[in-house]
Amino acid sequence: ILSLTITVILALAFIEEPSSLTVTSDVRYRLPAWNPPCGLTESLELLCFLVFVVDVSVKSYLIGWKEFWKNKWLMAYILTLIVSLTDWIVSLSFFCKESVRIRRILRPFFLLQNSSMMKKTLKSINSTLPEMASVVLLLAVHLSLFTMFAMLLFARTKDNQQDKEWVVYFRNLPDSLTSLLVLLTTANNPDVMIPAYSKNRAYSIFFILFTVLGNLFLMNLLTAIIYNQFRGYLLKSVQSSLFRRRLGIRAAFEVLSSLKETPASAQQSCVSVGALLQVLQKAEMDSRCKQAIMRSLKMCSCDQLSAAQFQKLFEELDKDAIKQHPPSPEYQSHFMQKMQFAFGHPCFGYLGNVVALANIISICVVLVMDADKQPSERDDFFLGAINCFFILYYLLEMLLKILAMGLRRYLSYPSNRFDGLLTVILLILEIATFAVYGFPHPGWRPEFMGLLSLWDMVRLVNMLIVFRFLRIIPNMKFMALVVTTLLDLVKNLRAFAGILVVVFYAFAITGIMLFKGAVKKNSKAEFTGSCVHINLVLYFKEKKKVLSWCSAHFQAGVVYCLLYVLSVHLICRWAKIYFVAWWLISSVIWVNLFVALLLENFIHKWDRRCQRESLSGIEYQRTVELMFRDVLEEPTEEELMEKLHQHPHLQLCR
Amino acid sequence: ILSLTITVILALAFIEEPSSLTVTSDVRYRLPAWNPPCGLTESLELLCFLVFVVDVSVKSYLIGWKEFWKNKWLMAYILTLIVSLTDWIVSLSFFCKESVRIRRILRPFFLLQNSSMMKKTLKSINSTLPEMASVVLLLAVHLSLFTMFAMLLFARTKDNQQDKEWVVYFRNLPDSLTSLLVLLTTANNPDVMIPAYSKNRAYSIFFILFTVLGNLFLMNLLTAIIYNQFRGYLLKSVQSSLFRRRLGIRAAFEVLSSLKETPASAQQSCVSVGALLQVLQKAEMDSRCKQAIMRSLKMCSCDQLSAAQFQKLFEELDKDAIKQHPPSPEYQSHFMQKMQFAFGHPCFGYLGNVVALANIISICVVLVMDADKQPSERDDFFLGAINCFFILYYLLEMLLKILAMGLRRYLSYPSNRFDGLLTVILLILEIATFAVYGFPHPGWRPEFMGLLSLWDMVRLVNMLIVFRFLRIIPNMKFMALVVTTLLDLVKNLRAFAGILVVVFYAFAITGIMLFKGAVKKNSKAEFTGSCVHINLVLYFKEKKKVLSWCSAHFQAGVVYCLLYVLSVHLICRWAKIYFVAWWLISSVIWVNLFVALLLENFIHKWDRRCQRESLSGIEYQRTVELMFRDVLEEPTEEELMEKLHQHPHLQLCR
Repeated sequence: ILSLTITVILALAFIEEPSSLTVTSDVRYRLPAWNPPCGLTESLELLCFLVFVVDVSVKSYLIGWKEFWKNKWLMAYILTLIVSLTDWIVSLSFFCKESVRIRRILRPFFLLQNSSMMKKTLKSINSTLPEMASVVLLLAVHLSLFTMFAMLLFARTKDNQQDKEWVVYFRNLPDSLTSLLVLLTTANNPDVMIPAYSKNRAYSIFFILFTVLGNLFLMNLLTAIIYNQFRGYLLKSVQSSLFRRRLGIRAAFEVLSSLKETPASAQQSCVSVGALLQVLQKAEMDSRCKQAIMRSLKMCSCDQLSAAQFQKLFEELDKDAIKQHPPSPEYQSHFMQKMQFAFGHPCFGYLGNVVALANIISICVVLVMDADKQPSERDDFFLGAINCFFILYYLLEMLLKILAMGLRRYLSYPSNRFDGLLTVILLILEIATFAVYGFPHPGWRPEFMGLLSLWDMVRLVNMLIVFRFLRIIPNMKFMALVVTTLLDLVKNLRAFAGILVVVFYAFAITGIMLFKGAVKKNSKAEFTGSCVHINLVLYFKEKKKVLSWCSAHFQAGVVYCLLYVLSVHLICRWAKIYFVAWWLISSVIWVNLFVALLLENFIHKWDRRCQRESLSGIEYQRTVELMFRDVLEEPTEEELMEKLHQHPHLQLCR
Repeated sequence: ILSLTITVILALAFIEEPSSLTVTSDVRYRLPAWNPPCGLTESLELLCFLVFVVDVSVKSYLIGWKEFWKNKWLMAYILTLIVSLTDWIVSLSFFCKESVRIRRILRPFFLLQNSSMMKKTLKSINSTLPEMASVVLLLAVHLSLFTMFAMLLFARTKDNQQDKEWVVYFRNLPDSLTSLLVLLTTANNPDVMIPAYSKNRAYSIFFILFTVLGNLFLMNLLTAIIYNQFRGYLLKSVQSSLFRRRLGIRAAFEVLSSLKETPASAQQSCVSVGALLQVLQKAEMDSRCKQAIMRSLKMCSCDQLSAAQFQKLFEELDKDAIKQHPPSPEYQSHFMQKMQFAFGHPCFGYLGNVVALANIISICVVLVMDADKQPSERDDFFLGAINCFFILYYLLEMLLKILAMGLRRYLSYPSNRFDGLLTVILLILEIATFAVYGFPHPGWRPEFMGLLSLWDMVRLVNMLIVFRFLRIIPNMKFMALVVTTLLDLVKNLRAFAGILVVVFYAFAITGIMLFKGAVKKNSKAEFTGSCVHINLVLYFKEKKKVLSWCSAHFQAGVVYCLLYVLSVHLICRWAKIYFVAWWLISSVIWVNLFVALLLENFIHKWDRRCQRESLSGIEYQRTVELMFRDVLEEPTEEELMEKLHQHPHLQLCR
C-alpha cells in the first residue's frame, strides 16, 4: 500500500495544472491539456497524506519514544508531513490559484525515506562529498584564474574589427566565466576559440591548455576520487547484510533459549529441537529453505541445539537454489527417440539462430531497396511472403522443441520462453493480417482496413522479428558476460536510480516554478528558427519532457547548449545557477558514480570468470552474496553478542 | 643526434608544400604561405635518412646476424628506410610535383622505433585489442539492430508533413546508421529526436533506450575493460625494470669473476675488491652513487666478494638521494637573528600569499569596472599605481627571504625559484614601463611608444601576477596531492603521448592527402555562414591546425559535428570512414587509456598518502620504483642465472 501511495503522489505531477501532457509536444499543433478540476488532485493528495500519517505513527509507536528522538529520518518525515499538510490547506483556501506549492518539491522525500537501501547509498555519497568538494574547489580556482587570464588576453582594443572575441565571449566577468564554464563541458568547444584563432594561431594555446587541464585532468580526477571511494562499497554493504543476518539468527536463538528453559543448569544455553520445529512451522519463509531446514533438523540426532549448531542450521538460507530443469519426456517409439535426439541437440538451436539471421538480412535488403520508393509504389508482396515463410519456420521450431523437451522443460529455460512468446505473438499478427487483407500475391497493395494498415502490420511484425534476434545473446560468450554484468549492475543500481529520480523530480518541479513566465516572454516568431530554440521553449513548458529529456541527456552538451541560448536570450541569472547545478549533479556526479559502480562490478565479474566457467553447467540463481562468497568474513561470536546486548528492545536475562 | 634527426624529419611537414603555416588561420585575410623551393626540404630529408641508415647498420652489426632475423622492429626499420628512399627518388625525378608521398605517412615510425618505452606500451595496448574488439563488436550489433528498428519505426508515410524524421535522419540505411552513430557521440543529441518527438512523445523512448544502452553502458564498459587491463601495467613494468637491473649487476659479477681468477678452487665464484675498485673508477655513473659504493667497499673487511655481497653493494643505486637544503647563514648581530627568525618563519610566506590574493582581487575589480569602457576612456593610473605598490612588496619579500635564508638555501626550494624569477621579470617590466612612459599620475594615458603600448605592458604584468598566484598550490594539502599526482602522471604518460603523436601525425597527413580537393569544391559564398563550416574548411587545409585542434577536441562532439556537416555537404564516404576511425582512436580509446592510467596512479597515491605524510619532513627525489617499493618482488638467483645462460652474447665458462 505504501509503495502504491508513493507512486500515486509522484505521478500526480503529470496531470496537475502547469503540466501539459499531450501526445504531441509541438506547441503549434497540440490541443490544450486536460486540466483536472480544483479539488480532484487535492483530495487524492489528502488520501496519500493520510496513509503517510498512519505509517509514521505506527513506526513511531513501534520504535518507542526514546529511539524516536534519535531517528533523524523519522523526524524529517513528520516535519515534511506537517509542512505538506499546511501547504495543502493554504492551497485549498486559495481555490488552487496560489502560485507556489512547496509540497511538490517535498514529494520525492517520501520515496527516499521509504527505502533503507537509498538511505544507505545517500550516506555513502555523503561521505564522498568532502573530497568531491575539494576537486570542485580546484575546478573553481582553475576556472577563475583562466577567466582572469582570458579577460586580460582578449581585452577591448581600439580596432573594432579585431576584438570579435571580446564582443562575443569575454565582454565582462559573468560572460567570460560562462564562456569558459561552457568550454569545460565542451559544448561550445570550437566556436569559442575561432575569432581569436583566426586572428592569431597562438591564441589556441590558451584554449588547449584550459581544456586539457580542466577537462582531461580535473574531470577525470573526479572519476578517480569517486571510484576510489566506492571501491569497497559493494563489499561493505554485502558484509554488513551478512552481519545483520547472523545477528538475527543469533537473536532468535537467544530468545528461544531464554523462553523455554529458564532454570537449565547447563553453562551453555540451548534450544530444544521440538520447540524450534514448532516455531518453524509457524514462521513465514521460502518453502524450499523451510523444508531443507526441517530435513536437516530431523536428521540431527541430538535433542538440544547449541548456538553454533543453530547458526549452521540456518546456513541453508544463504545457499542458492540449484535450478533443476524438469526431465524430458521418455518416448517408447524408436523414431520418436531419434526425433528427440535431433531436435534436443544444441545444433538445432544454432540452426534457428542462422535462420533468424537470414530473416534479419532479408528484411534489411528489402528496407534498402524500398528506401526511396513512394508509399504508393511499394509492393508488400515480397516482404509478406518471406515473413510468412519465416514465421512458419519459427512455429515449427517451437513445436519440435516442445516435442523433444516436453512443455515443462521447454518453459523452464528463459530463452525459450522469450522465443515462444514472440513466436506466438508473430503468429497471431500474421493470422490477423491474412484474415483482414487475404493472402499475399504479386502486386499486393490492399487499402487501409480495420485497426492498422497492412504496412503498419508488416512493420510491427518486422520489429518483433528484429527483437527476437536478441536470442543469440546467450550463445556468444563475451556478450553473455557483458549482459549478465549489466543485469547485475541494474540490480545494484536500483538505489542510485531512486536517488536520481528524487533529484530529477525536485529539479523538474523547481524548473517549472522558476521558468513559468519565460515561455510567454518569447514571441512565437522566434519559434520556427533553430531547433535548439524550440527545445528551449519546450523545455520549461512541461515536466514530462524535462524528465524524459534529462534522462536522455546526461552528457552535458545539450544542457549547456540550452544554458547558452538562455543566457543570450533571457539573461536570467537564476537559469544559469539552475543549469550549472543540474549539470554538476546529473552529468558530473551521477555519471561518475555510475562509472565507478560499473568498474567495480565488471572487474569483480572479470576476475571470477575463470571460476565461473567451470561451473557453467549448473545454473545458479545468482545473488550478490555469491559473488563475494570467498571474500566475506564471518562475524565472531563476541561481536554478535555485544551488538545484541546493545539492542534497545531485546532484554536478555543474563 | 638521433633525437634531433627525428624532430627535424617530423617538423618538415610544417613547411612542406600542402602546409600553410601563417599567423592568421582565416583564409580571407591571410597571405600565401612560404613555399620552400624544390630540393630544400628534400635535401634535409636525405640527410635525415643517411643518419637513420648509419643508425640501423650500427645496430644490426652490434646485435649480430642471427639475432637480426629475430628482431622484427629492426627489419621494419630497414623496410621503412628502403621505401622512404625509393619514394624520395621518385619525388626528385618528378621535380616535387608528384601527388602522393608515401614516405610522409611512414615518418612517425622513426619516432616509434627509437623508444623502448613506446614499443612496450604498444605491445600492452595490443594485448588489450581482442577485448576492446569484442566491445566494439557489441557496439556494432547494438547500432545495427537499432538502425533496423529505426528504419521500421520512422518509415515513409503518405502524409509528407508527418515524415520529417524520415526525410532528415532516416532516409536510407547509410543515413540511419550515421544518425545513430552520431547520436552515440551525443553530438546531435536533441536534434535527431525532435521531429519524431513533436509528432508523438512516445518516440523519445526509442532514443532514450539507445542512448542509455550505448552511451552509458557500452561506452563505459570500454573504460572498465581498459582499466582492468592496465591495472597491473605500472607494477609490471617497474617489476621487469628491477629484474633487468639485478640481471645486469649479476652479469657484471659473472664477467668479473670469470675474467680474474679462472683457476680458483673455491666452489663459489668470487670477485676481488681490488678489481672491482679498478672497474668502478673507470665506470661512468652518478658520482653520488659511486662515492657511496666506494665508501661501503672500503668499509668491507673481506678481500673477496660473493654474489650476494656484490648485489648488496649496488643497492645504493636504488636508494633515493635525500635532498638537503644548504644551511641558513648564521648572523652575529642580535637584530639580524631576530630578522632571520621573523622572515624565515612560514607565517611570512602566508602573508605573501595573502598579499598576492589581494593583488588578484584588485586586478579583478579593475577589470570588472573597466569591462565596458572604450579604450580611449580607460584610465590606467589606478592599475599602474597598485601594481607598482605590489611589485615593490614582492621585491621586498624576495630580498628579505634571501636575507633570512641565504641565497643558496633560497634557491634550493623550487617554489622560491618560481617566485623569484617572476618577481625579477615583473620588476624589469615595471622599470621598462616607467622608463618609456614615465611615472603614473591621474589621467595617465600616454600615446603608443616603443615595442608595446602601455596597455599591453600593464596586461602583461597582470598576467604574470595571475600566474605568480600559483605559488599558493604547495600550501594547500589536497591541491598539492592532486598536482603531484598529475606530475607523476605526466611522467608515466610520456610513452602514451609519443604513440598519440604518431597517430596524430599519421591521421593529419592522411587527412591532408584525402581532402586536398575538398576545399576548392566549396564556393567562398558558403564561407561566411556558420562558424562550423569555416572550421570544416580550415580543418583540412592545414596540418598545424589539425594537430592543435585534435588535441583540444578529444571530446567527440566537434569531430562529429564536422562529420555531420561533411556528410551533408560533401557526401564523401572516405571522409566518414576517416572520421569514424579518428573518433574511435582519439576520443574513445585514448581517452579511456588516459582515464585508466589516471585511476591507477591516483589510487596508488591515495592509498600511500598516510605513509607519505609521516615522511613529509624529508623531500625525496621521487622515482616510480619508490612508489612500489613494498610490493616489488626480488628476483631469485635461479631466475637470474637461467636468464643469463640464455643470453646470446655472454658465454659463461662453466
